[in-house]
Amino acid sequence: MTIKVAINGFGTIGKRVADAVAAQPDMVVAGVTKTRPTSEAWLAASRGYPLFGVSTDHAAALSEAGLKVAGALPQLLQGADVVVDCSPGKMGVTNLPAYAAAGVKVVLQGGEKHQSAGLSFNAAANYHKAVGATKARVVSCNTTGLIRTLHPLREAFGIDHVHAVMVRRGADPADTDSGPINAIEPVLRIPSHHGPDVATVMEGLSISTLAMAVPTTLMHLHAVAVQLTRPPTSAAEVLAQWGRQRRILFVEGAKGVTSTAQVMELAKDMGRPRSDLQQVAVWRDGVSLVGPSLYYYQAIHQESDVVPENVDCIRALSGTVKDGPTSMAMTDTALGLTNGA
Amino acid sequence: MTIKVAINGFGTIGKRVADAVAAQPDMVVAGVTKTRPTSEAWLAASRGYPLFGVSTDHAAALSEAGLKVAGALPQLLQGADVVVDCSPGKMGVTNLPAYAAAGVKVVLQGGEKHQSAGLSFNAAANYHKAVGATKARVVSCNTTGLIRTLHPLREAFGIDHVHAVMVRRGADPADTDSGPINAIEPVLRIPSHHGPDVATVMEGLSISTLAMAVPTTLMHLHAVAVQLTRPPTSAAEVLAQWGRQRRILFVEGAKGVTSTAQVMELAKDMGRPRSDLQQVAVWRDGVSLVGPSLYYYQAIHQESDVVPENVDCIRALSGTVKDGPTSMAMTDTALGLTNGA
Amino acid sequence: MTIKVAINGFGTIGKRVADAVAAQPDMVVAGVTKTRPTSEAWLAASRGYPLFGVSTDHAAALSEAGLKVAGALPQLLQGADVVVDCSPGKMGVTNLPAYAAAGVKVVLQGGEKHQSAGLSFNAAANYHKAVGATKARVVSCNTTGLIRTLHPLREAFGIDHVHAVMVRRGADPADTDSGPINAIEPVLRIPSHHGPDVATVMEGLSISTLAMAVPTTLMHLHAVAVQLTRPPTSAAEVLAQWGRQRRILFVEGAKGVTSTAQVMELAKDMGRPRSDLQQVAVWRDGVSLVGPSLYYYQAIHQESDVVPENVDCIRALSGTVKDGPTSMAMTDTALGLTNGA
Amino acid sequence: MTIKVAINGFGTIGKRVADAVAAQPDMVVAGVTKTRPTSEAWLAASRGYPLFGVSTDHAAALSEAGLKVAGALPQLLQGADVVVDCSPGKMGVTNLPAYAAAGVKVVLQGGEKHQSAGLSFNAAANYHKAVGATKARVVSCNTTGLIRTLHPLREAFGIDHVHAVMVRRGADPADTDSGPINAIEPVLRIPSHHGPDVATVMEGLSISTLAMAVPTTLMHLHAVAVQLTRPPTSAAEVLAQWGRQRRILFVEGAKGVTSTAQVMELAKDMGRPRSDLQQVAVWRDGVSLVGPSLYYYQAIHQESDVVPENVDCIRALSGTVKDGPTSMAMTDTALGLTNGA
Repeated sequence: MTIKVAINGFGTIGKRVADAVAAQPDMVVAGVTKTRPTSEAWLAASRGYPLFGVSTDHAAALSEAGLKVAGALPQLLQGADVVVDCSPGKMGVTNLPAYAAAGVKVVLQGGEKHQSAGLSFNAAANYHKAVGATKARVVSCNTTGLIRTLHPLREAFGIDHVHAVMVRRGADPADTDSGPINAIEPVLRIPSHHGPDVATVMEGLSISTLAMAVPTTLMHLHAVAVQLTRPPTSAAEVLAQWGRQRRILFVEGAKGVTSTAQVMELAKDMGRPRSDLQQVAVWRDGVSLVGPSLYYYQAIHQESDVVPENVDCIRALSGTVKDGPTSMAMTDTALGLTNGA
Repeated sequence: MTIKVAINGFGTIGKRVADAVAAQPDMVVAGVTKTRPTSEAWLAASRGYPLFGVSTDHAAALSEAGLKVAGALPQLLQGADVVVDCSPGKMGVTNLPAYAAAGVKVVLQGGEKHQSAGLSFNAAANYHKAVGATKARVVSCNTTGLIRTLHPLREAFGIDHVHAVMVRRGADPADTDSGPINAIEPVLRIPSHHGPDVATVMEGLSISTLAMAVPTTLMHLHAVAVQLTRPPTSAAEVLAQWGRQRRILFVEGAKGVTSTAQVMELAKDMGRPRSDLQQVAVWRDGVSLVGPSLYYYQAIHQESDVVPENVDCIRALSGTVKDGPTSMAMTDTALGLTNGA
Repeated sequence: MTIKVAINGFGTIGKRVADAVAAQPDMVVAGVTKTRPTSEAWLAASRGYPLFGVSTDHAAALSEAGLKVAGALPQLLQGADVVVDCSPGKMGVTNLPAYAAAGVKVVLQGGEKHQSAGLSFNAAANYHKAVGATKARVVSCNTTGLIRTLHPLREAFGIDHVHAVMVRRGADPADTDSGPINAIEPVLRIPSHHGPDVATVMEGLSISTLAMAVPTTLMHLHAVAVQLTRPPTSAAEVLAQWGRQRRILFVEGAKGVTSTAQVMELAKDMGRPRSDLQQVAVWRDGVSLVGPSLYYYQAIHQESDVVPENVDCIRALSGTVKDGPTSMAMTDTALGLTNGA
Repeated sequence: MTIKVAINGFGTIGKRVADAVAAQPDMVVAGVTKTRPTSEAWLAASRGYPLFGVSTDHAAALSEAGLKVAGALPQLLQGADVVVDCSPGKMGVTNLPAYAAAGVKVVLQGGEKHQSAGLSFNAAANYHKAVGATKARVVSCNTTGLIRTLHPLREAFGIDHVHAVMVRRGADPADTDSGPINAIEPVLRIPSHHGPDVATVMEGLSISTLAMAVPTTLMHLHAVAVQLTRPPTSAAEVLAQWGRQRRILFVEGAKGVTSTAQVMELAKDMGRPRSDLQQVAVWRDGVSLVGPSLYYYQAIHQESDVVPENVDCIRALSGTVKDGPTSMAMTDTALGLTNGA
């Protein structure tokens, strides 16, 4: 069976999910939606993805610009098994009735609240919960990155408490309207939303988070401090545990990778599509264990790290693959993701 | 008695210390040094500060450019009681023999190691230790800022542990050679030097610090987590304790001060010389107390926050004022520093 | 006679105009308006400027926050001779009926169209036209800066054509919402609006302009090429002609002033209020004359360069001073503006 | 015959040239050099390019780090027909004696002076001059970009004068040491070096250039004004002439491509290796013709636009392909470069 996937919204996340879906052996892009004839609409056309307007008015606008249009969202949903909601802002929840009416399964993004889906998803941590479910929310890029390193720590060593400071990029590379240009903006609400959000997947986790935004477009950087319940005797054991996981890439300051810029340069060097880095990057030489206290830095490519989780989530909802490791292996093979550095 | 103060190096810190010294009722600027006839050399002239070359060659170069030069560093030291070393990088330690030979007392900056002076200084925390001493090191801008909020917490509530993440500006405003332009750079060595540096003043403090640099020029931002020994019942008590201190300025997100940029705008609005902010800025609505865990954000104006401490340190070494609170009050009155927001 | 000046809008421009008005011997700040109790509202209070709401609702909101409020805009206008419209965006034109009803004279800012006032103003170029008029528009920061250097060139040497490329700061320092963070944005409409805008004051001038925005907050930079009708024999004659004007400040790369950042540092060093630079900065060693072609760079402090022109425009409309040079001298003396570097 | 190409220096340009050479049907990468075992050295290994130290010491350092090393530069040169000098800074000229001794032909980069090679190269403008020559210099990224649009203008319409303002990115993306972070830096020497550099290829061209650096990493932006000798009747004819050229990519503000950031996003969308844009990007809706005056904007991807010219230059020096258009077609086909947008 081939899973027919609709992508509602073909922007930063949507276009990446579409390409990742198209690369899977068991999925096909049923279509993507746009509202305006921007260069991304033309990209969809050049990729061969059936193009739909979000509404019939949007479909008309796309058509007038010379694009071949297959209809509007309702038609797209009729031909789909699963819809991935990549609509902007926090509009996903408003689309739920339409999705339900069409009888499609739904993947929401991390901008939505946990309650919208009732199930928050990370492939390594709780794939099984989404198997056969009607809808699930793939948690945000920051939350996904935190879970990727924290879940295996909890499994191996136990976690008493996590304290993370998330330093966020101010805007995505092609979002030239947003700032700040020259400032650091603290998120004054403490804890920031990230901590509770991690706990929607890693239930019962004790976690405090602070956050701020800075003038860069490339990645988020996390400074993480973890109190381990059963600490290992060396940081090397932590690295070994992470080394056994998928979607963690080690980088090294000693090799000249001293900032988020060089991490992204590495992604270019590796020939990744769009120069994306879908794994969380952990500095191998930036990990320190002091008694039960583990400190580390990790960088998150906000545009792409949730993409493999979206693919896994589609598969889980469809129920075609029952276990996470099998789905993750399929996804990563199709996307060319390998571990190590 | 008027304390005659030499300032060796008239750059970012030196020019500010000179102006602050000139504003004190009990001090006079004996002279300042420069190596090249930049606009800052002309500034010294326009301020009426006697201008000296660091060496006789430098003096000649300044003179050739049309500046009135009073001699070289040795002559300046002969007419001084205290020298404030504001030489670039970590050169202060190499100047110590010359200072000793001239018999002047020495204030070093935070770029030097603790061992260079054997005594690290913060006016509120350990003024008394520097009274009559030969030399002392005013700790760095970040360390000074941390001590300003941590010392009163320790006094009032006790501290079990501090974990701070320091997000540093990449370069000073007029340093256009340094980056990064679009990256976040973690300090991979853990702990960063800040934690141990705080403990040179606050002896025995348990503190872990991580740091990173970001593309901004304005201020450093600290995300601080403190485990209190005897926690108060509300964050309001913490604010009250800080409100009783000098050199802490409260700012509020609710009044539109949502980033380091608006903090600096506030300094402009307050009419501060050079639009400096010599106090540490603490977000009143960014403080959270969860059981014994206190979280807060503070911003540090890296160019100026050590300036009042330099003035106090001069006074302590001179031995003319025996207690910190009296000196701090004199300094702050002369500089127009008041608390609150 | 003391001119009673209302400032409608106490933001980036309004607060600067208020302070400049307050510094004049022949003017008084009748009051300023705000809509919300931000830190700028508290600043107005601390300055002693009577505070008014824009509407009665705004007045109530300010009052609720604990501010002393004198009324709403209509009451302010009743006690004013001239209103300086510093409302955000391009709303000034919508306020004209209210101003007319109150019988006050009106100074508009450069964000408004020329047609809104019918008279575009620059103190050096056309002060006389505004004497006794009902309303006038002080042209934008970029236009003001261009006229300051172009008008004296035209007077002395004639101008066949001007071609200027304006590289704009992306956002003001305290505007942390706007970008771009990492991009250059060309103004695709050619000519940009700046060229025609200069010609609203310098009638008949042949001028072409291109523009772009870049990720900086400090100043605009202009790269100007002028075809002179009667070129002098050397760039020195051009410098001499500019040296005879007000509100042109020479800076020098040879003294380390190699970017807009060092220009702003100079303003800090000079002790200017808010570290503003109300003059246009021209690089003395960045001027080149090749036959009839003159090339030069100038930097514009977008937040403050129109402030002295606003003061002069108030005086011209009031009719109390009939000639530009006298008003400009009064304004500059009160603001501490002197030429040279 | 397969041309054996040595690349001396495997950094920003060198790694791109190596990949482009490897993609050509008539060339092979004989080897690349590194000095230190950075991540780029490991990249060379993973690409299968024979790795050499610049010196035997460097070779030893690489070997010690665990890399497989084939020798040092002299050995590499022995097995090569052409060396492409991609050494940092302006060191290429110091390598010329070693290249001459090895009897290899030499491609220098634009950082070197014209005199170093005596022949400055652009594929469209003067390929024939380099056929069979011993050495040539591929002009810099900015100069290459200017020639790509100016040469066809001169051919079709004649050029009386060019005036270009080049707004340069402050640093490459992975160069996190360089600034400025928040400033615009004018190149005070007028004309900037770009104008004369264009004329090393387009002989006799009348051109004036000004330049500045800004805080971005992505691309340079050029604002160009050209006085045409035989102007067409509309900008459409100019677009048509450019449309017939290779290595010009049209972009459109109307499709949302409003800055250099969206241009680079387009390169990501197009799936280009490393997300590079080897063509010069010209805004179709940013071209204006006013009488004989043509105005336009173009953006230059500084890391990659000279790559195809390097490939062509290798072929020209080798003498295997005698005419530019044939070589350019071979190069572009191998690199997947097509025109249009």
